[in-house]
Amino acid sequence: MALQFELLKTHGSARRGRLTTAHGVVETPIFMPVGTVGTVKAMRPDLLKTELGAQIILGNTYHLFLRPGHELVAKMGGLQRFANWDGPILTDSGGFQVFSLAKLRTLTEDGVTFQSPLDGAKHHLTPELSTHIQHALNANITMCFDECTPHPATHTQAAESMRLSMRWARRSRDAFVDRPGFGQFGIQQGSLYPDLRAESTAKLVEIGFDGYAIGGLAVGETPDELHEAIPMAASLLPTDKPRYLMGVGYPSDMVKAVLAGVDMFDCVLPTRNARNGMAFIRDAERGGVLKIGHAEHKASDLPLDPTCTCHTCAHYTRAYVHHVHKEDEILGHMLMTHHNLAHYLTLMADMRAALDAGTVENFAREVLPLIR
Amino acid sequence: MALQFELLKTHGSARRGRLTTAHGVVETPIFMPVGTVGTVKAMRPDLLKTELGAQIILGNTYHLFLRPGHELVAKMGGLQRFANWDGPILTDSGGFQVFSLAKLRTLTEDGVTFQSPLDGAKHHLTPELSTHIQHALNANITMCFDECTPHPATHTQAAESMRLSMRWARRSRDAFVDRPGFGQFGIQQGSLYPDLRAESTAKLVEIGFDGYAIGGLAVGETPDELHEAIPMAASLLPTDKPRYLMGVGYPSDMVKAVLAGVDMFDCVLPTRNARNGMAFIRDAERGGVLKIGHAEHKASDLPLDPTCTCHTCAHYTRAYVHHVHKEDEILGHMLMTHHNLAHYLTLMADMRAALDAGTVENFAREVLPLIR
Repeated sequence: MALQFELLKTHGSARRGRLTTAHGVVETPIFMPVGTVGTVKAMRPDLLKTELGAQIILGNTYHLFLRPGHELVAKMGGLQRFANWDGPILTDSGGFQVFSLAKLRTLTEDGVTFQSPLDGAKHHLTPELSTHIQHALNANITMCFDECTPHPATHTQAAESMRLSMRWARRSRDAFVDRPGFGQFGIQQGSLYPDLRAESTAKLVEIGFDGYAIGGLAVGETPDELHEAIPMAASLLPTDKPRYLMGVGYPSDMVKAVLAGVDMFDCVLPTRNARNGMAFIRDAERGGVLKIGHAEHKASDLPLDPTCTCHTCAHYTRAYVHHVHKEDEILGHMLMTHHNLAHYLTLMADMRAALDAGTVENFAREVLPLIR
Repeated sequence: MALQFELLKTHGSARRGRLTTAHGVVETPIFMPVGTVGTVKAMRPDLLKTELGAQIILGNTYHLFLRPGHELVAKMGGLQRFANWDGPILTDSGGFQVFSLAKLRTLTEDGVTFQSPLDGAKHHLTPELSTHIQHALNANITMCFDECTPHPATHTQAAESMRLSMRWARRSRDAFVDRPGFGQFGIQQGSLYPDLRAESTAKLVEIGFDGYAIGGLAVGETPDELHEAIPMAASLLPTDKPRYLMGVGYPSDMVKAVLAGVDMFDCVLPTRNARNGMAFIRDAERGGVLKIGHAEHKASDLPLDPTCTCHTCAHYTRAYVHHVHKEDEILGHMLMTHHNLAHYLTLMADMRAALDAGTVENFAREVLPLIR
């Protein structure tokens, strides 16, 4: 078996599962911290595991291809050894980043030609090359190379884009080298159109993957559109494989998506917003966020989140974090990042515990008013 | 007793001592990491203690006075509680930083008037205010407010500057509030002139302090001038109190200064150079430094320093540190800072062990060719 997935328990659409990889077990539902260039920004990877309980992190094919190069990472023993993270790693395919380059790239049936923003060099990324790079990086979970359909898209545009991605999914699958404990996920596309999401899913299942991702969401829809699309998209996916909602989102998005049957999440929000001074907290009055740069925190001896037990909240006052944030000190980024990742990871740990206890709907009802 | 200092052993001029403060014991000779604004840059303070064995850190009166303000730090339980460092803290008096402001400050007998570079506000810093601020910060070791005599200085200029500092030393001492486990150090000045250094020392001893610092060195002298001045300055100081060489320096400077009878050091070099990509290592061929940004390290699977056992060297290759340094990732600063502080702190731990074993001259002879 490439990857093993065990569905331990379900409650309505919500699922409690266990994914086994060559580099360890991932208890789902799970949030995966993003380590774009081979580091989860401002976190030491050993502490990410020992202090925060992170189980799996992301790497980025596009960034690591450009620097330091996948051959080098392979030579250094794979991304796990290179980056001192001995747990499972999922790499995205690079498609999303290449398409973000806008005018610097050209799309053909074969793939995408783009100019490196680092040195202007031309590169041609294909489903085959993306899959090969992810193999070299030693990703436990390889993602298909796809086009992230822009939003908004007409039905015709969304259909054409999705069908190209499905042809690329076939080519990605053919290029994938099977190894025990390593697998590949297909990515469902189809914009907000249920018939296209269904067609996409059927195609992916026909090819056969070790897991299925929901792509092309959280790219500009309204919150209502997003919260309608997630259950629609998730409900179409097979039940016996892990389901990964790419790039989503706020803590409340994850809670709702778990109830809709999603198992895995990634997002840069906890780490990026940490560096911008936004702490995610459980606090109904504040709508789940605290802006540490605000003057109101200058002399506060409260922790960022009095309900949180993370290292930052156990040892530092808002006054201190405010101070180091205002001074733009590296420690400010470290403490804020640590806390925000704790908020995301603890929320998922609590969801798993509630699923185990059969109380996930109660927990969601209690926690949703407290979080962003 | 304000502070207790025990001289455990001497070897020639070199000394092995123990300084006891209200916040713990400091084994000397010791290097003190610099935490200018209340954080040793890019280091979590708990790891500074548990992983690096740091025993005492510095804070800065000038910076903390401007932001967040000493009253706030006092209200938050002192710098130890505010900054989550439960060990001893030494604060410099702010004099050096104020004089660095050059045209933004005016010197009178009373003190120094300066304009804050943060908001343009005018402030007047005196020996009394500096001492009061350091008390509010809860510094275990308070430094006298003095003028750091610029280099070069004529004998007349150096004498006038030193005598002003000695009048300020008297006023600093009078303003100091004695508490068990807290003390105050006087600062010897006199530029490179032995007679002025002697006059300064006599005046300080007449006032009576808990320790004596050598000020006004490493401010532009040639290496030869510096290495002549340190033993001259140190030899004048009382033997029964700790001796602190301010702002020095490179690792080899510290080794030589220990042999000349200095007990305590601080310097921003290990932390600042870490962020600039310079690793201090024990390597004769490289002259004790490794510039991690150089292309030669791109694919090296060696640690920064194969002789080092720090967290960075135990878990990361030069290739990885090169990568995160080139990407300007926060983790790069964290790993480099950790290693450089380990280099400095381990060097002093090795000097202490060699003093205990009576082999300090052998150790110095062996290590000096390896370090910068």
